[in-house]
Amino acid sequence: MATGLVIYYSRSGNTKKMAQIIAKSMNDADLPTVVKDVADVTIDDIMEADAIVIGSPCYYAEMASEIKALIDESVSKHSKLDGKIGAAFSSSANVGGGNETVIMGILHAMLVHGMIIQGDPRGDHFGPVSIGAPDDRATAQCQRRGKRIAELTKKIHE
Amino acid sequence: MATGLVIYYSRSGNTKKMAQIIAKSMNDADLPTVVKDVADVTIDDIMEADAIVIGSPCYYAEMASEIKALIDESVSKHSKLDGKIGAAFSSSANVGGGNETVIMGILHAMLVHGMIIQGDPRGDHFGPVSIGAPDDRATAQCQRRGKRIAELTKKIHE
Amino acid sequence: MATGLVIYYSRSGNTKKMAQIIAKSMNDADLPTVVKDVADVTIDDIMEADAIVIGSPCYYAEMASEIKALIDESVSKHSKLDGKIGAAFSSSANVGGGNETVIMGILHAMLVHGMIIQGDPRGDHFGPVSIGAPDDRATAQCQRRGKRIAELTKKIHE
Amino acid sequence: MATGLVIYYSRSGNTKKMAQIIAKSMNDADLPTVVKDVADVTIDDIMEADAIVIGSPCYYAEMASEIKALIDESVSKHSKLDGKIGAAFSSSANVGGGNETVIMGILHAMLVHGMIIQGDPRGDHFGPVSIGAPDDRATAQCQRRGKRIAELTKKIHE
Repeated sequence: MATGLVIYYSRSGNTKKMAQIIAKSMNDADLPTVVKDVADVTIDDIMEADAIVIGSPCYYAEMASEIKALIDESVSKHSKLDGKIGAAFSSSANVGGGNETVIMGILHAMLVHGMIIQGDPRGDHFGPVSIGAPDDRATAQCQRRGKRIAELTKKIHE
Repeated sequence: MATGLVIYYSRSGNTKKMAQIIAKSMNDADLPTVVKDVADVTIDDIMEADAIVIGSPCYYAEMASEIKALIDESVSKHSKLDGKIGAAFSSSANVGGGNETVIMGILHAMLVHGMIIQGDPRGDHFGPVSIGAPDDRATAQCQRRGKRIAELTKKIHE
Repeated sequence: MATGLVIYYSRSGNTKKMAQIIAKSMNDADLPTVVKDVADVTIDDIMEADAIVIGSPCYYAEMASEIKALIDESVSKHSKLDGKIGAAFSSSANVGGGNETVIMGILHAMLVHGMIIQGDPRGDHFGPVSIGAPDDRATAQCQRRGKRIAELTKKIHE
Repeated sequence: MATGLVIYYSRSGNTKKMAQIIAKSMNDADLPTVVKDVADVTIDDIMEADAIVIGSPCYYAEMASEIKALIDESVSKHSKLDGKIGAAFSSSANVGGGNETVIMGILHAMLVHGMIIQGDPRGDHFGPVSIGAPDDRATAQCQRRGKRIAELTKKIHE
């Protein structure tokens, strides 16, 4: 059976909340999924999951260095993540504050690993975005994305 | 005396409104600036201006093809825009809808021309963004950006 | 049975050559695939294909306006391309000339359509890149990518 | 008198070599410039320089986490770098390996700080790129870029 892993870094708690909403939605769509703070994630955790979802606050329009350090460490398993499902999300203080570039930065790294990503024709196309704490709009985006990730993962990995 | 040119493409009128607010702010900051629909812009217009500001709605997270066609046409003056000031803005239907990638796409093209661009440590860092018609927040961003563009242009080109 | 479509715009012929190599590799991997100049592509062609691969030369670090015009036109079928497979490639005159930003620009548009894309842990991670006419390296990248696109398409759409 | 600072992270030595070539060219163009390994850079070093140039190897198509950690730390001086000159460079193992996205990632961060960046109409438009150790082409790009950075810095900050 396929499984999912949602990884986040969060100081304010906003990105963590998004992670929890996405993971719940993945579980509700029958993809067993755990949520982990990046500080607690091992490379083995990443190797075991079929879907890897990474969220970061927006620091200077790019992912937090704590997230990048995990990605850099994953080079020890280079080419072993080929074909896994990837997705990303971010939170920031402002509209126009770099949310999209943060998400695309994470997706760039996933593409280098050979991972499979999917957009969404409605709403937050690249991945869920929250301005501040997740409001109703951002919560709905996280739920919708979690469901889509689970569906794609089960289609490809089960 | 240095001058400015604000170029836009707009169907809904939202991007046009942003163009007008930015141009007014540039004029108010003593940089004589005209606003033109992309359909009316000639390569000579571009060659004469010291600051070139381009706005596009967000179509599939990249600039409208009408804007790209002008940029492609500008190859006839390649290396002649080196050192001019550039800036970009965009409007879209949604947060997370691709505004930042539109702006960065325009800035990529300006960098290939050797143009000079500046970010903003407050608000819309890459360039003003409007979700739908410009509200008070987006209007203030356009005004602030217009003033900053004018100041940089006068510093370098006068 | 799933099918593929490779779309290109080319003046020098370099991007066209890449398109043909990729399409041959897709056909060799048992995904019936046609190659078309963007001028000959209809929205119906796009709707019928399960895998859509788009190549552009690098004009100002973004896709050619002719390619963007087709993407803008595809809004008439918005949300109908959700789940299709997408991929991109580009050619340019120089290393550091904007190849990656061209490819990412095309992939941005595909993500907005809800399409599924995959990277590659070896070689040209985002999509095949050629500096000038495709040499042995670029040819091998196009062949490898075509095979990977066909495999993913058959896995998901057959 | 204006001054420059070139910051690098390097394991193979390739990015370090590029840093030294760029800094020499900045000094030759009369902008006193020091080169520092990111491990030795303090926020005070950054505050004192008028031109800040950052180079990173290409790790998963984004800057090394060691570089990102310094950028994240610079939030303590947010808005104080407004108007400084910024530039970026990168090295990678392959063409198509993510060099441009690394450079653009660093430039994104500089724009969030309100910094001023310039492209180049010839060669590596966003910043110098080396595939492996800097060859003659990459060396010339580094020299050219260093000169351009120095000229822009002296124009604005002296």
